[in-house]
Amino acid sequence: MADEIPDIVIGRLPIYLRALTHLGKGLEKTTTSSHELGQWLGISSAQIRKDLSHFGEFGKQGTGYNINYLVEQLRQILHLEQEWSVILVGAGNIGHALASYQGFAHRGFSIQWIFDNDPQKIGQEINSLTVQSVSSLQDITQKEKIKVAILAVPASTAQSLTDQLVQVGIESILSYAPINLKVPEGVRVRYNDPVIQMQRMAYYLEP
Amino acid sequence: MADEIPDIVIGRLPIYLRALTHLGKGLEKTTTSSHELGQWLGISSAQIRKDLSHFGEFGKQGTGYNINYLVEQLRQILHLEQEWSVILVGAGNIGHALASYQGFAHRGFSIQWIFDNDPQKIGQEINSLTVQSVSSLQDITQKEKIKVAILAVPASTAQSLTDQLVQVGIESILSYAPINLKVPEGVRVRYNDPVIQMQRMAYYLEP
Repeated sequence: MADEIPDIVIGRLPIYLRALTHLGKGLEKTTTSSHELGQWLGISSAQIRKDLSHFGEFGKQGTGYNINYLVEQLRQILHLEQEWSVILVGAGNIGHALASYQGFAHRGFSIQWIFDNDPQKIGQEINSLTVQSVSSLQDITQKEKIKVAILAVPASTAQSLTDQLVQVGIESILSYAPINLKVPEGVRVRYNDPVIQMQRMAYYLEP
Repeated sequence: MADEIPDIVIGRLPIYLRALTHLGKGLEKTTTSSHELGQWLGISSAQIRKDLSHFGEFGKQGTGYNINYLVEQLRQILHLEQEWSVILVGAGNIGHALASYQGFAHRGFSIQWIFDNDPQKIGQEINSLTVQSVSSLQDITQKEKIKVAILAVPASTAQSLTDQLVQVGIESILSYAPINLKVPEGVRVRYNDPVIQMQRMAYYLEP
């Protein structure tokens, strides 16, 4: 089943989940509709209904969606019912910000180990985690069966560290390095480069 | 012309630009092809040619693209020939990392002012910029005709700060707050939420 659903649809599910969580916990609503959700997100209600229909029937004509139920279903679809342990590679500025970031909690991920190859950083405490040497990456990742990594290193070392991550069994990489990474089939990389987003918006600015 | 080209196409141009810059400066190549670029990016060469054809003829059958020329053209299309001054709102962990981030240089943006409303942060120096009070946001933004902002504040204050940014003439916002922001037509927001990317990849993991 998995690979029959376009990745672009999968990509919208976390956005629905975030909005539903906000409507439910933040605004204390118990039900919503594809119309309301669409207005909130700037996505058409037809698109939302079509995306969700890949996974089942979640709402009723007239009464809409039960928010808690849909949140639970989306968490299950996205495999977020468990908390994924995450390794963070790179203890520079971005690594520090990520290690202290409150946004992971209750969203399926927890940074459990931080690695760096700079002797000055190894042994540092960041948000009660001790920075480990990259040389212990293999042992820890394999022993703990970690599948998810965040890469916050310069472009120059990103590919060789990616190769190491793939070798020790990492299957999902979120990369902050501003280069394209080569990974074998079965491993996914997504990129977080703020400049790419800003450049996309600059197109619409009057120079 | 501008609004005839789908935003999804615009969204790929910065990715092409980044790859071409890497091929040119990093790998010291002078020419490339849609095939090579596509292999590098995991995008089909037909897609690349189609995207670029919206803006003109950039390559020659057989000889491919002159990298420097195509980089210059993409920079012009995306309005990156000038450097956009950017205000950063929020001097917390993410704000600190952004203020120190080296990735903006030569890519069209420069953070020039940092704002926060925490009296303990106002006056702090981050990477040779002094954190200003949010109360001076209007004066500075209007006087300097700033159009681009990065919002690195908690969800709870993100919408009210967005309203202020819109009021003083900001047209592009990159938001790190994990909520959806309402903006009037003509203002663009893009979101940088690492968890959304990680959740999208978790779908493909075996729980």
